[in-house]
Amino acid sequence: MTRLLKGKEAGEALTQKARQQVTELEKMGVTPTLLVIHVGEDPGNLSYEKGIEKRCTALGAAFRRLVLPSDLSEEDLLEVIRKANEDREIHGVLLFRPLPPHLDARRIENALLPEKDVDGMTDLSLAGVFAGRKVGFSPCTAQACMEILDYYGIDCCGKHAVVIGRSLVVGKPAAMMLLSRNATVTICHTRTKDLPAIARSADILIAAAGKPKIIGKDYMRNGQVILDVGIHAAEGGKLCGDVDGEQAEGTAAALTPVPGGVGTVTSVVLVCHVIEAALRQTEKRFDDRSGTR
Amino acid sequence: MTRLLKGKEAGEALTQKARQQVTELEKMGVTPTLLVIHVGEDPGNLSYEKGIEKRCTALGAAFRRLVLPSDLSEEDLLEVIRKANEDREIHGVLLFRPLPPHLDARRIENALLPEKDVDGMTDLSLAGVFAGRKVGFSPCTAQACMEILDYYGIDCCGKHAVVIGRSLVVGKPAAMMLLSRNATVTICHTRTKDLPAIARSADILIAAAGKPKIIGKDYMRNGQVILDVGIHAAEGGKLCGDVDGEQAEGTAAALTPVPGGVGTVTSVVLVCHVIEAALRQTEKRFDDRSGTR
Repeated sequence: MTRLLKGKEAGEALTQKARQQVTELEKMGVTPTLLVIHVGEDPGNLSYEKGIEKRCTALGAAFRRLVLPSDLSEEDLLEVIRKANEDREIHGVLLFRPLPPHLDARRIENALLPEKDVDGMTDLSLAGVFAGRKVGFSPCTAQACMEILDYYGIDCCGKHAVVIGRSLVVGKPAAMMLLSRNATVTICHTRTKDLPAIARSADILIAAAGKPKIIGKDYMRNGQVILDVGIHAAEGGKLCGDVDGEQAEGTAAALTPVPGGVGTVTSVVLVCHVIEAALRQTEKRFDDRSGTR
Repeated sequence: MTRLLKGKEAGEALTQKARQQVTELEKMGVTPTLLVIHVGEDPGNLSYEKGIEKRCTALGAAFRRLVLPSDLSEEDLLEVIRKANEDREIHGVLLFRPLPPHLDARRIENALLPEKDVDGMTDLSLAGVFAGRKVGFSPCTAQACMEILDYYGIDCCGKHAVVIGRSLVVGKPAAMMLLSRNATVTICHTRTKDLPAIARSADILIAAAGKPKIIGKDYMRNGQVILDVGIHAAEGGKLCGDVDGEQAEGTAAALTPVPGGVGTVTSVVLVCHVIEAALRQTEKRFDDRSGTR
């Protein structure tokens, strides 16, 4: 039988530490605060955002939302980010992407201070992920995959991990994190030849292809651990992932469900980052004041 | 018969463009200048450094060498780097690593301005490699591998590339560059199980294991392209690579020799980076003066 790797359980474990940190922050009079920025409304992000807001509330963090017009100028958006950088009451910023094409995404992403970059989009955060060092924060979805593996005690050392997808938000950072856990890692993408055969050779398969139910029986082998990063609207208002869950049932040793898998943990990771950011920023201010840096 | 992918030929092709850039710089009264910094003397770097000096001279770039005592303090080394950052006559800095253990390598590496980081060691250069963007410069050895593939017309698209080694100077950046060329990439390391079988599955094999002649017949399959990044002292004062060249002969479709392969191109890439850095810095100063930024 296939074991379901439930995001709720893995997420709960993460919130334990976060709750303690929030208590610490409360004593210092600090409420960890996330600012979510939308440039234009994108209904596709709604459920993810709702999840984040719910998590914030549950953990005692504040949630602010800013919806900017989609024809906003680059300078105006940079000004919004500059203000968030300076605002001591905002500890983390989540900028929903992709941005409209008239904006220089790299310039805007890098305008955010790495210490407030709770979704790992700045160059410094990316360098940290690439080098396996703690700089800025890791992209939340990739980290959520690792949290699930860790929570369920899935050892990566010496395993063959196959990552389908090479984006900077999931595929590449997940690959680097799996390497840090001593997995042998293969990165696949749209140009990969005979993807099913490579997927079958995986001990751990991370599906971030961005296509509904593309990972069927021909991609699977008995006993695999499959993490499904995809989330798509399916028939009848339901949600589905990149993996065909029915076909995985009975073949995979373990699988994250959709919904209730990676996405659930991702929103917890994000809020944990905000709390961690608030702690780092508060401690830094304290150190600066007392001259102990 | 195995084709030898000669570093000299691939390097020559690179110098063509570099020569034109040097001519441009001469007209502006600029001599591209590399500063090489040693903290303590390491005889292992001597042949690489000699190659760099020779290349500099051949291409009309200046070469400066600074040997610092191995017990130098962190502050003193940071001061040396700060001076190099400010010195308009130095366009690129190569800091030989590893640094002595009493120094905070990350702090020192990141003290260098990315625009002078001709060996890709700063966080911003690493982020550029990870994201596939032009920020700073790429680590020279990894880029040398790509230059050899490009020069010899070896198409990576859809090929399975296996990289043995996960360092920040070769393995990880080479993997990212192969991904950018649309290869499916597997990264292996000391914890990889059944490395020979994975190596045999490669169309393109990059050997950066750091062990002499470890890649023997059991790692090979007919028709592979093998790039040998290793360089080791062998019997009788000779040099050898990670690949057992005799065993590759007749099996591999193509192989870089050691010496005269990747290392040769690496020194050319480094000097090309210095020239490119000089051009960028000179153009930037020109733009700043005329207010056209």
